[in-house]
Amino acid sequence: MYENLFWLGLVGAAIALLFAVVQAKKVLRFSEGTELMQKLAASIRKGANAYLKRQYTTVAKIFVIVFVILLLLAWRDMLDNWFIPFAFLTGGIYSGLAGFIGMKIATSANARTANAAHESLNRGLNVAFSSGAVMGFTVVGLGLLDVSIWFHILKYIAGFEAPKIAQTMVMFGMGASFMALFGRVGGGIFTKAADVGADLVGKVEAGIPEDDPRNPATIADNVGDNVGDVAGMGADLYESYVGSILATFALGAAAYASENLTWNAILLPLVIAVVGVVCSVLGSFLIRTKENATQKSLLATLRKGTYTAAVLAAIAAAPITYFIMGSWGPYISILAGLIAGCAIGYFTEYYTSDTYKPTQGLADSTETGAATTIIGGISLGMLSTAAPIVIIGVAIIVSFLAAGGSLSTADAALYDAAFSKGLYGIGIAAVGMLSTLGITLATDAYGPVADNAGGIAEMSGLGEEVRNRTDALDSLGNTTAATGKGFAIGSAALTALALLVSYVDVVEGKVAALDLSLTNPAVLVGLFVGAMLTFVFAALTMSGVQRAAQSIVVEVRRQFKEIAGIMEGKADPDYASCVDLCTKGALHEMVIPSLLAIIVPVITGLILGAEAVVGLLGGVTVTGFVVAVFMSNAGGAWDNAKKYIEAGHHGGKGSDCHKAAVIGDTVGDPFKDTSGPSLNILIKLCSTVSIVFSGLITQIHLF
Amino acid sequence: MYENLFWLGLVGAAIALLFAVVQAKKVLRFSEGTELMQKLAASIRKGANAYLKRQYTTVAKIFVIVFVILLLLAWRDMLDNWFIPFAFLTGGIYSGLAGFIGMKIATSANARTANAAHESLNRGLNVAFSSGAVMGFTVVGLGLLDVSIWFHILKYIAGFEAPKIAQTMVMFGMGASFMALFGRVGGGIFTKAADVGADLVGKVEAGIPEDDPRNPATIADNVGDNVGDVAGMGADLYESYVGSILATFALGAAAYASENLTWNAILLPLVIAVVGVVCSVLGSFLIRTKENATQKSLLATLRKGTYTAAVLAAIAAAPITYFIMGSWGPYISILAGLIAGCAIGYFTEYYTSDTYKPTQGLADSTETGAATTIIGGISLGMLSTAAPIVIIGVAIIVSFLAAGGSLSTADAALYDAAFSKGLYGIGIAAVGMLSTLGITLATDAYGPVADNAGGIAEMSGLGEEVRNRTDALDSLGNTTAATGKGFAIGSAALTALALLVSYVDVVEGKVAALDLSLTNPAVLVGLFVGAMLTFVFAALTMSGVQRAAQSIVVEVRRQFKEIAGIMEGKADPDYASCVDLCTKGALHEMVIPSLLAIIVPVITGLILGAEAVVGLLGGVTVTGFVVAVFMSNAGGAWDNAKKYIEAGHHGGKGSDCHKAAVIGDTVGDPFKDTSGPSLNILIKLCSTVSIVFSGLITQIHLF
Repeated sequence: MYENLFWLGLVGAAIALLFAVVQAKKVLRFSEGTELMQKLAASIRKGANAYLKRQYTTVAKIFVIVFVILLLLAWRDMLDNWFIPFAFLTGGIYSGLAGFIGMKIATSANARTANAAHESLNRGLNVAFSSGAVMGFTVVGLGLLDVSIWFHILKYIAGFEAPKIAQTMVMFGMGASFMALFGRVGGGIFTKAADVGADLVGKVEAGIPEDDPRNPATIADNVGDNVGDVAGMGADLYESYVGSILATFALGAAAYASENLTWNAILLPLVIAVVGVVCSVLGSFLIRTKENATQKSLLATLRKGTYTAAVLAAIAAAPITYFIMGSWGPYISILAGLIAGCAIGYFTEYYTSDTYKPTQGLADSTETGAATTIIGGISLGMLSTAAPIVIIGVAIIVSFLAAGGSLSTADAALYDAAFSKGLYGIGIAAVGMLSTLGITLATDAYGPVADNAGGIAEMSGLGEEVRNRTDALDSLGNTTAATGKGFAIGSAALTALALLVSYVDVVEGKVAALDLSLTNPAVLVGLFVGAMLTFVFAALTMSGVQRAAQSIVVEVRRQFKEIAGIMEGKADPDYASCVDLCTKGALHEMVIPSLLAIIVPVITGLILGAEAVVGLLGGVTVTGFVVAVFMSNAGGAWDNAKKYIEAGHHGGKGSDCHKAAVIGDTVGDPFKDTSGPSLNILIKLCSTVSIVFSGLITQIHLF
Repeated sequence: MYENLFWLGLVGAAIALLFAVVQAKKVLRFSEGTELMQKLAASIRKGANAYLKRQYTTVAKIFVIVFVILLLLAWRDMLDNWFIPFAFLTGGIYSGLAGFIGMKIATSANARTANAAHESLNRGLNVAFSSGAVMGFTVVGLGLLDVSIWFHILKYIAGFEAPKIAQTMVMFGMGASFMALFGRVGGGIFTKAADVGADLVGKVEAGIPEDDPRNPATIADNVGDNVGDVAGMGADLYESYVGSILATFALGAAAYASENLTWNAILLPLVIAVVGVVCSVLGSFLIRTKENATQKSLLATLRKGTYTAAVLAAIAAAPITYFIMGSWGPYISILAGLIAGCAIGYFTEYYTSDTYKPTQGLADSTETGAATTIIGGISLGMLSTAAPIVIIGVAIIVSFLAAGGSLSTADAALYDAAFSKGLYGIGIAAVGMLSTLGITLATDAYGPVADNAGGIAEMSGLGEEVRNRTDALDSLGNTTAATGKGFAIGSAALTALALLVSYVDVVEGKVAALDLSLTNPAVLVGLFVGAMLTFVFAALTMSGVQRAAQSIVVEVRRQFKEIAGIMEGKADPDYASCVDLCTKGALHEMVIPSLLAIIVPVITGLILGAEAVVGLLGGVTVTGFVVAVFMSNAGGAWDNAKKYIEAGHHGGKGSDCHKAAVIGDTVGDPFKDTSGPSLNILIKLCSTVSIVFSGLITQIHLF
C-alpha cells in the first residue's frame, strides 16, 4: 500500500505552488506608486534581471562541462546509472528557478511595499510578507515537484525497486547544491561589493546618507539585496530541503530493508514534508494584523504564524509517523529536529539582537575605538558557537537514540543492527526541522524586500514617516531573519551529516573494507583538509568582496569627479555602470571558490581514497558549521550594534562610537552575507559531490 | 643492550643544562649600563618576578586540587597507578621552572642588550642571542631530565617492564601541559592587556610615542614581554618536547611488542632528542658575526646556525636510527618531521613578513580604511592555513607509510599489523621536528629581549642610533620568531595526534570494543564539541585581554589627569599600579579558559563515553591547529604591515593609512600573542587530560 502513496508529494507540490501563485497575484494587485518610484523599481528589476541572466549563463557553461564529465563517468561505468547526469541538470534548473522566481517577485514587491507603507505599516507588512511567501512556497513546491517526478520516473518508467530508487536519488542533490553555491557566492559578492563600495565613498568620504540617489552605487546596492539575499537564499534552502529528503530516502532504505519497511521508511520524509506544507499554509493565514498595529504586535503576529505552523506540524506528524512506521521512535527524531531549529533560531537572535546583552556590550566596546569593536565582535561571534553546537549535538544524539540507535558497543551484532536505524533518525530530524520551511522562509525573505522598499522611499522622497515605517519593517525583518538563519544553518549541518552517512553507505557497497576510524591517518588528513577548505573558501569569498568593492569605490569616485552637478542633484549618476561592475566582479570572483568545493574532495579522494574523503566531509561539516555561525553572528551583532547606536545610544549618529560601529558593520558585511551563508552550501555540496564521484574514487586512487 | 642505554638521556640533559649555564654566565658578564637603565631593568625584573610569583601561587592551588582528585582516582582504582599524581606535580614544576629560568635571564639581559647595542649591533645580538640560548637549552635540558629521571625510577625502583613504563609515562604529560596553558594564557593576557592599554591611551589619545617613560603602562608592557612571550613560550615548548617523546614511547611499545624491539622503539625518541641537543650546541657556535655586520648578515648568521643544526641532526640520525631499529623506515619519518617544521616556518614567514607580497598587499588595503584592513588581514590569515595543512598532511602520510603503515585496507590482518608501526612513525616525526628545539627556541626567545632592550633604550634616552640598532634586532627577532612559531604549531599538531592515538591505545586496553568510525554519532558530536571548544577558548582569551586592557585604559587616564606634571616629565608615573592591574586581570581571566580544557573533555566523556572523547580530540586538534595558524598569521601580518607603513610606505607614520594599520595591529595583538599560541597548548592538554582520566571515563558514562 505504502508504495502507492507517493503521489502525495505531487499534491504537496501543487498546494505549495498554488499558494505561491495566489500570494503573487495578491502582491501584484498593489500599486507601484509614483512615476519616480516605478522608474526606480524598474531600474532595480532591470539590474537584477541582467545580473541573474549573466550569472546563469556563466553557470550554465560550467554545468555543461560537469554534465559531460558525468556522461563520461557513466560511460566508463564509474557512475551508478545514466540518470545521474540528467538529474544533475534538473536539480540545477529547479534550484535556479526557485531563486529566479523569488527574485522576480521581490523586485516587483519593493516599490509596492513602499507605496503600501505610505498608507499604513500594516499594509506594508502585508505586501512584503506575501512576496516572501511566494519565495518560501515556490522553494518547497519546486523541491517536492523535482523529488516526486524523479521518483515516479525511476519507479514506473525505469522500474527500479525501492532500495535502488533511494540509492540513485541520493546522487540527485549535486545539481541543486552546485547551483545554490554559485547563487550564494555570486549574489553574496555582488550585494556586499555594492554595499561596501557605496558606503566607503558615499557615507564615509562624501558624507551623504545611505540610499541617497546621488550615490551612483545605490541602485547596485538595492539590486544586490535581491540577487544575494533573495535569489541566493532561495537556492540555498531549496538545496537543504531536497538534500535532507533524498539523504533520508537512502538512509531509510538501508535501515529498514530487512524488516520489509523500505517503502514506509522512504515514504515518511516525503509525507512529513507535505504535512509541513499544509501547516505552513495554515500558519500563513494567521498573519493578519489590525490597522493600528505596532512593531511589537507585528513581530508577535509573525511569530504566531511560524510557531503555529511548527506546533501543528508536530501534532500532525505524531499519528502519521506511527501509522507509517509502526513505532514512536522516528517521531521523536522529527520532534528533536523541529525543536532544535527553533532553539538555534532563538540563540541566533539572542546573540545578534540589540534587545539582549551581547550586542549591547558590543556597542559599549565602541567607546574605546574601532580595534576593541572588532575584537569584541569576533569574540562575541566565536562565543556564540557554543549554544548551536550543544543544540545540534543533543539533537543528533536524541534523534539517533530515539530512532533505535545504540551508543553501547558491548554487543557488536546488536550495535550494528541498531546503528542504521539511528542514522535514519538523524536524517528524519533534518526533514522535521525543514518541514515548515515554507513559512520560515517567508518570514525571512521579506526582509530584503522591506530593505529595498526603504531605499525606494528614501530615493523618491516619500518623507520621514514612510521611511520610519519601512525601517520598522526592515528591523523586524532582521529579527525574523535571525530565526531563518538558525534554520538554514542547523538544517545544513544535519543534512550534511545525513549525506556523509549516505556517502559511507554508497562507498561500502563498492569496496571490500573501510577503516573510518579517527586513528586512520587518511581520515585524519581528510579532517585537516576539510578544515582548510572551510578557511580557504571563507578567505576567497571575503577577498572577492573586497576586490569587487574596490572597483566600485574607484568608479563612484570617478563619477563624483567627472559628472558635473551630481552632488547638487542636477545631473543623474550612471547607475548602470556600477551594476555592471558588480556583475563582472561577482561573476569573476565566484568561480574559483565554487570550483574548490568540487575539486578538493575529488582530488583528496584520488590521492588518499574514500576514507580521506569521509574525513574531509567530517572536517568541512564541523568546521564549516562553526565558522558559519561565528561569521553570521559576528556580522549580525555588528550590524545591530550600529543600529543601536544610531537609535541614540553612545552619542548616536556621527559620534566617534558610531564611526567605530560603522567599521565593525563594514567588516561584518561579507561575514554575514557572503562567506557565512555560503559555508552552509559548501558543506552540503562537498557531500553530494563525493557521493556522485564515489565510483571514480573507489576505482582510482593513489594510496 | 638497548635497555641499558637510557642514561644517554641524562647525558643529553647535562649537556643542555651546562650549555645554558655557560650562556647565562656570558650574559651576566656584560654591564647593565647607566644608573637609569639599571633602575628600569630592576623595575621590569621586579614586576615580572611579582607576576610570576602570583601566577604560580594561583596555579599551585589548582594543582593541589587536581592532585587530590588524582589521588582519589588512584584510590578508587580509576588511575593506572600511584605514580601519576606525583608525575603530574613534577611535570608542572619542571615546566614552570623552564619558564621561570627563561624569564629570569631575559629580564637580566634586556638592559645589557641595550647597553651592548650602544657599542655595536653585533654585541647587542650576542647578548640577546645568548639569553635566548639559556631559555632554549634550559627547556630541552629540563625536559630530558624529567623524562630520564622518571624512566629510571619506573625501571629500577618500581621494576616495570618496557610496555608498562611506556604506558605509565604517557600519562605524565598532563602536569606540563596544565602549567603551560596557565603560563601561556595568563602571560598572554598580561602582555597584551598592557600593550593594548598603553597604546590606546598613550599613542592614540595622548599622542606620545611607544615606550615613552611618561606612559604609566610602559613598564607593564615590558614586563608583559617577559612573562608572556618568554615564560609562556618556554612552558609551551617544554610541553611539546616532553609530550612528543612520551607519546612516542607509548606508540613504540605498542608497535614493536611482537618483534622484541620494544626497548629499541622506546630508546629511539630519547636518542634522537639527545642528538638534537648536541647538534643545537654545535649550531650555536656558528652564530658569530663580524663587528661591521648588517641586519642582513645577522639574519644569515642566525639561519646558518639553525639550518646547520637541522642538517647535522638529519645526518646523525640516519645511522643511529638504522642501528637501533634495524630499518630505514623510522628515519624517513624523522626526516619528514624535520623538513615539515622548516617548511611551515618558511610559509609563516612568507605570509607575515613585509618582504613578501601578502603583507605588502595588506598594507595596500589600508588605503581604503580600517574596515578593509581588517577584512584583508582576516582573509590573509585564513588563506595562510592552506600551506601548513598541506605540509602537515604530507608529513603525516609520509611518516606513517615510511614507518611501515599501510593505507590499503584490502587485507585486514596485514593492515592492522602495519598500522601501529605507521602511527609510531607519526610520533617519531614529531620528535624529529622538535629535536633541534634548543637552537630554534634560542633564535625565537631572543626577540622579546631585543624588544625590551629597545624600550629601555628609548626610556633612558640612549639616542636614535642605539634605538635603530635595537629596532634592527627586534625586527630580526620577528623574522626568526616566524620560524619558531612554525615549529611550535607544527609540533603541537603532530604531538597532539600522537597523543590522540596513544589515548586510543590506552582506552582499548580498558573496554571491550570501540567504534571510532566517523559515522558513529558519538564521534561526530565529539568532533563538534572539539571545534566549539576551540572557538569558545579563543573567544574567552580574547575578551579576557579586552577586559584587562580596559582596566589599564582607565588607570592610565586617571594618572594623566591626577598626577600633576606627568606630561611634562616632571613627575614620575605610578608604574607599579599598572603592573598590579595587569597581574590581577591576567590571573582573573586565565582561570576559566584554562579549566575548560580539563572540564570539557571529562564531561563529554562522562556523558557520551570514550568514543566521543576521541572525536573531541580530533575536532580540537584540527580546528585548534587551523585557528591557531589563522590567528597567528593574521596578527603577524597586521603587525608587519604597520611597520612597513612606518618605514615610509603609504604616507608613513601619522598618515590615514598608518591609523588604519594601527587598528589592525591592535586587533592582531591578542590574535597572535594570546589566543593563537594558547591554542597550541589547548590541543595537547585535551589529549593528556583525556589519557589521565580514561580510567574514570571508561568506567562511568551515561550513554
